[in-house]
Amino acid sequence: MMIREKTELYETAVTQTLNHHASVRAFIDQPVPDEMLNAILNAARRSPTSSNMQTYSIIVVRSPEMRQRLAVLAGNQSHIEDCAVFVGFLADLNRLRIASEMHGEQLVKSLETTLVATVDAALVGMSVQTAAESFGLGAVMVGGMRNHPQEVADLLGFPPGVYMVFGMSIGWPQEPLGTNPLKPRLPEALVIHHEQYDDKDPRPLISQYDARLADYYELQNRNQHTAAWSGPIAKRLKKPVRPHLRQTLEKMGFRLD
Amino acid sequence: MMIREKTELYETAVTQTLNHHASVRAFIDQPVPDEMLNAILNAARRSPTSSNMQTYSIIVVRSPEMRQRLAVLAGNQSHIEDCAVFVGFLADLNRLRIASEMHGEQLVKSLETTLVATVDAALVGMSVQTAAESFGLGAVMVGGMRNHPQEVADLLGFPPGVYMVFGMSIGWPQEPLGTNPLKPRLPEALVIHHEQYDDKDPRPLISQYDARLADYYELQNRNQHTAAWSGPIAKRLKKPVRPHLRQTLEKMGFRLD
Repeated sequence: MMIREKTELYETAVTQTLNHHASVRAFIDQPVPDEMLNAILNAARRSPTSSNMQTYSIIVVRSPEMRQRLAVLAGNQSHIEDCAVFVGFLADLNRLRIASEMHGEQLVKSLETTLVATVDAALVGMSVQTAAESFGLGAVMVGGMRNHPQEVADLLGFPPGVYMVFGMSIGWPQEPLGTNPLKPRLPEALVIHHEQYDDKDPRPLISQYDARLADYYELQNRNQHTAAWSGPIAKRLKKPVRPHLRQTLEKMGFRLD
Repeated sequence: MMIREKTELYETAVTQTLNHHASVRAFIDQPVPDEMLNAILNAARRSPTSSNMQTYSIIVVRSPEMRQRLAVLAGNQSHIEDCAVFVGFLADLNRLRIASEMHGEQLVKSLETTLVATVDAALVGMSVQTAAESFGLGAVMVGGMRNHPQEVADLLGFPPGVYMVFGMSIGWPQEPLGTNPLKPRLPEALVIHHEQYDDKDPRPLISQYDARLADYYELQNRNQHTAAWSGPIAKRLKKPVRPHLRQTLEKMGFRLD
């Protein structure tokens, strides 16, 4: 009991928001006010960024026609159409290129610039998710934007050196966060290491988590592999995922060397 | 005035925390309680993760000796020694490999799996930053962990398929957040696009920001290029940054194709 009380001491509005996170894909038909979205995006723009380079952009898509086309490109994810607003988080080397040219220099791209831009976009996206949830909004990150990066770029008019790392459907959830049990995460002992990477056999804890996750899906009447975590991973990753990605990103003006 | 009042309506404890973010590199000598750090890390572990794969790990480093060696590897960043606790955010394909093998499958790595793991680590890192700041802690992300990824991996005992995307020095700040003026970010008009990527000439706004940032540095008595944003970028990126990264990551068990 002492431990529980002690843990509750270490709670803030931020950790409460994080602790209630769930991806939301079902929205009611109610708009997100512009001022609220601006407050969310601009708070997220204070996120850390590598060497203050701010190697990312944000694109706000409200047009239903455009969102319908993006939904198709993401593999028919209907929440992109049903949400109030769709926001894309872009790795953006275009602005750095222009900054370099303002001083007569040529931007040299590399794997590092690609990773920095990708991470900068991800950091801002994470902050948008948390900020949105703090207003009672629901959101889901959409990695499916990497299914057809060139088509997404063409649709939204990206210049070379810009790709969408992920998108996010945002809106008012049909079921407020906290209503349903949260999807369990991997046991802490598998994920948090102390001083040295703990390389003891993780399989017992993975199996335990597989069973726990299967129970969670069963409660939701979702048919799932009995090894609910490792099973789908083994199946999904036995062939290359998005094998076109390297070639496409290079064509779009990124370097991976 | 009306606009200001309207914006203030759209404020939560989360956006307040985000809006006060600054990177902290100067800490007082006071420990971060284990329970507080656990609350922070476990709240962050609720962050979104691609397809629930949780392709990341966290490593907590308290040992002063180890932090001293990490400080050197990061290019003599003394805050890694001076902070209360250093936390690393790792892209981790090792656990996925084991999960696949539990079902007799071979994990197929690709650029996509590298990006997913990198983004998963970044999302959790961002949440740790925000959660830590909500307790009044200060933190700074350390991309310099990518200077010598293999040495970092050797020091902390990473298996193949694990690299540190960035680290984070966490501790009690010498100057509480909100004490000093915040570093200005790029103008919103350069970063947030609506419906289509806005490709009008960004140079006037970049110059404006260059001057604003120069003023900010001058207030802090920091000698800086008069074009305080674009100047250092042009200089820094005219040659490849971390050109070894691709080869090193491939040696460490990542694929970039």
